[in-house]
Amino acid sequence: MNRILVIGAGRSATSLIKYLLEACAKHRWTLTVAEADIELAQKKVGGHTAGKVVKLDAAQPGDRRRLVSDADVVISMLPPGLHHEVALDCIALGKHLFTASYVSPQMYALDEEVQRAGLIFVGELGLDPGIDHMSAIEKIHEIKALGGHLTAFRSYTGGLVAPESDDNPWHYKISWNPRNVVLAGQGTARYLEQGSLKFLPYHRLFDSYRLIDVPGYGKFETYPNRDSLQYRSIYELDDIPTLIRGTIRHRGFCDAWHALVMLGLTDATYQIPASANWTYRQWLASYLPAAASALSLEDRVARVIVRKRVVQVMHQLRWLGLFDDTPIGIPNASPAQILEGLLLRKWSLRPTDKDMVVMQHQFEYELGAQRHLLTSTLVMRGHDADATAMSALVGLPLGIFVRHVMLGHFRKTGVRIPVTPDMYRPVLAELHDFGMEFFEKTKLLP
Amino acid sequence: MNRILVIGAGRSATSLIKYLLEACAKHRWTLTVAEADIELAQKKVGGHTAGKVVKLDAAQPGDRRRLVSDADVVISMLPPGLHHEVALDCIALGKHLFTASYVSPQMYALDEEVQRAGLIFVGELGLDPGIDHMSAIEKIHEIKALGGHLTAFRSYTGGLVAPESDDNPWHYKISWNPRNVVLAGQGTARYLEQGSLKFLPYHRLFDSYRLIDVPGYGKFETYPNRDSLQYRSIYELDDIPTLIRGTIRHRGFCDAWHALVMLGLTDATYQIPASANWTYRQWLASYLPAAASALSLEDRVARVIVRKRVVQVMHQLRWLGLFDDTPIGIPNASPAQILEGLLLRKWSLRPTDKDMVVMQHQFEYELGAQRHLLTSTLVMRGHDADATAMSALVGLPLGIFVRHVMLGHFRKTGVRIPVTPDMYRPVLAELHDFGMEFFEKTKLLP
Repeated sequence: MNRILVIGAGRSATSLIKYLLEACAKHRWTLTVAEADIELAQKKVGGHTAGKVVKLDAAQPGDRRRLVSDADVVISMLPPGLHHEVALDCIALGKHLFTASYVSPQMYALDEEVQRAGLIFVGELGLDPGIDHMSAIEKIHEIKALGGHLTAFRSYTGGLVAPESDDNPWHYKISWNPRNVVLAGQGTARYLEQGSLKFLPYHRLFDSYRLIDVPGYGKFETYPNRDSLQYRSIYELDDIPTLIRGTIRHRGFCDAWHALVMLGLTDATYQIPASANWTYRQWLASYLPAAASALSLEDRVARVIVRKRVVQVMHQLRWLGLFDDTPIGIPNASPAQILEGLLLRKWSLRPTDKDMVVMQHQFEYELGAQRHLLTSTLVMRGHDADATAMSALVGLPLGIFVRHVMLGHFRKTGVRIPVTPDMYRPVLAELHDFGMEFFEKTKLLP
Repeated sequence: MNRILVIGAGRSATSLIKYLLEACAKHRWTLTVAEADIELAQKKVGGHTAGKVVKLDAAQPGDRRRLVSDADVVISMLPPGLHHEVALDCIALGKHLFTASYVSPQMYALDEEVQRAGLIFVGELGLDPGIDHMSAIEKIHEIKALGGHLTAFRSYTGGLVAPESDDNPWHYKISWNPRNVVLAGQGTARYLEQGSLKFLPYHRLFDSYRLIDVPGYGKFETYPNRDSLQYRSIYELDDIPTLIRGTIRHRGFCDAWHALVMLGLTDATYQIPASANWTYRQWLASYLPAAASALSLEDRVARVIVRKRVVQVMHQLRWLGLFDDTPIGIPNASPAQILEGLLLRKWSLRPTDKDMVVMQHQFEYELGAQRHLLTSTLVMRGHDADATAMSALVGLPLGIFVRHVMLGHFRKTGVRIPVTPDMYRPVLAELHDFGMEFFEKTKLLP
């Protein structure tokens, strides 16, 4: 095995490509990066001798299969919806496949075929999902090995902006897929708390945040992610009474995002006809009934929508440009698309801006008669808008694991995620060499 | 033509079957009522000599087609999702088809085929859609014929309980499909107001109701229905600045229903595992975070969810049984299914209860230099829980129009809705004989 194919060279692929180029140079392997935006790919490969760039529209099966057939190992950095197509190519052509995305039930259904073909398919090799699993399960295994009995597990991750680059009232900049920033949390979140199943619908999600403390950085806001329960058996915590997975935001984000949700601006289910010629102000006004009195649009938004921290939230909405007479410029867009367009401009990392990834696990466990709270926190900052912490933490575990496979150190076939020691240990060890370090704190509980 | 087939004998078919039996007796036609619940159908046909009852599972194409082939005219009272199958049968077998449901784009797409087969397919022949169209368009045509220029049209309909049978704090009982009562308003409503397109997301819909006055009955609450805009061209009001279609509820309903929406109890998109053994109280508690303090569930609901009229809304929630330790009894139900099960018991019409249908159209128009407001209101009460106003107003227009077709008075082929004078006039005239009367009031506007 000496030929690696990476399909997709977007925001999250920077560190992955850099890592693989160095590994290829060292081991005399070759890397092909296939991408629709050829300039983007060329910039990331940077003329490295071990690397080659190919233009690819991943939706074209013929071109895609030709590239897959020329590789030994395929890494798909495509949007999750396209992984399945690539997986079928890999089975047909006998290639191993790796992704940083959630393994879908559809993908798990290929397990038998993948095993029969003697192939290795591993997903959830990024940050979240990925490092969150690996670091949590390592710790859960440690606590259990000590004889501890887990009673609560809470795990939070956030892709944020570093304090020194934080210069807007939302305290947020985009370091990952902006569409997912807009759609985050849609549906109903479910989690376990004190032995009871809990549901939290989207229209209350950002209004129900809880605070966590990140040593050295102060308080952050968290809200639960989609379905925490599906991690119960993955984490071998089938009888745990409290299990929450959540997202981290800087203080002041959630109240203002809740206002956007209440207005209806994050909805992706319908299009607004002729939206290109509307202004943001007209768009915003379309979510409030016609003014019965002489109240300004600002006053009506403040009275009807904003429930908490009115002055601050109104400042955040105004700063975003929602009250501006600027044309939207996107034809027949959904509310979510209009908002994404706006946020891409307002929340972009400037070239020298640093992002910051924060992850915190909280483990409550009983050891003998004593209750403990172990808090394990990772804070990692990026170098600039290109070499982000997000790109490092999504790409490095993928690169490290693929190298591991290329060297013949992992041979188990089938569809998997990195939750066993033989998978997470080498990845976490090498990530540590890259500066990824969890800070741990233990507290005795009454 | 002398053979009529009615498929489905549910809640809304009572008056239709009664009307058709009388018409059949008079004109020596025959009526076949096909229904899965044979006893229900027998009760409605009541041994009438012109009527016959046949057991039918409408999802079985073979049985369905056999019945359709034995008829000249088919009336589908099935759930809307099944009309299309019946429509294909009717085309294949050369039968006319009538429904009280919205004509779907899929159904309109059959227009050419229907015309080619020389058949008459008419939908929206019920109350809403149906009488609302017919009565509004008649009035719009009148105003235009006078030379009036319409500047606003608002149309509201509600299937309610009559005041003398109203004995619960919600002031609501179920006279139509209970599933639709629970799902009403989900999505984003859109309407036109003062020349601007307006959006109102579900999580604010019941919090944004407006009042209308029904002469002799006082104030009612209204909220906009799904997409008022699609009625612009049907009503020939393409340049009207204000167009709202809405639903009517008694005073005090919307604030409490808004609490159910905010809790998340109307959601039909996910199942709750093992819900049969939960109590309503446990279910309700699952929508609130674990208690941090000694606050009761009642206090937490009141503080977190209820924004307006707290005492009254809490009384409504308590009366519904949401705080009760009664088992739910429905396995793996969605929230919407659990709520429907509860409402079916709590909001059922008792045998002697009377329902009440209220419809109000508001037309604003300019005639010369003068602005007018014409308010046209229909209030109709049922006789009892079986012979409801809802069943009369859904079934009679359908029966009347079908009789009209059977007598050869309407011969236009193709897929249609009753918006032309040759369709609405005979129906409205005969409905008038059945006691359906709009009360009109005109006011000069400044």
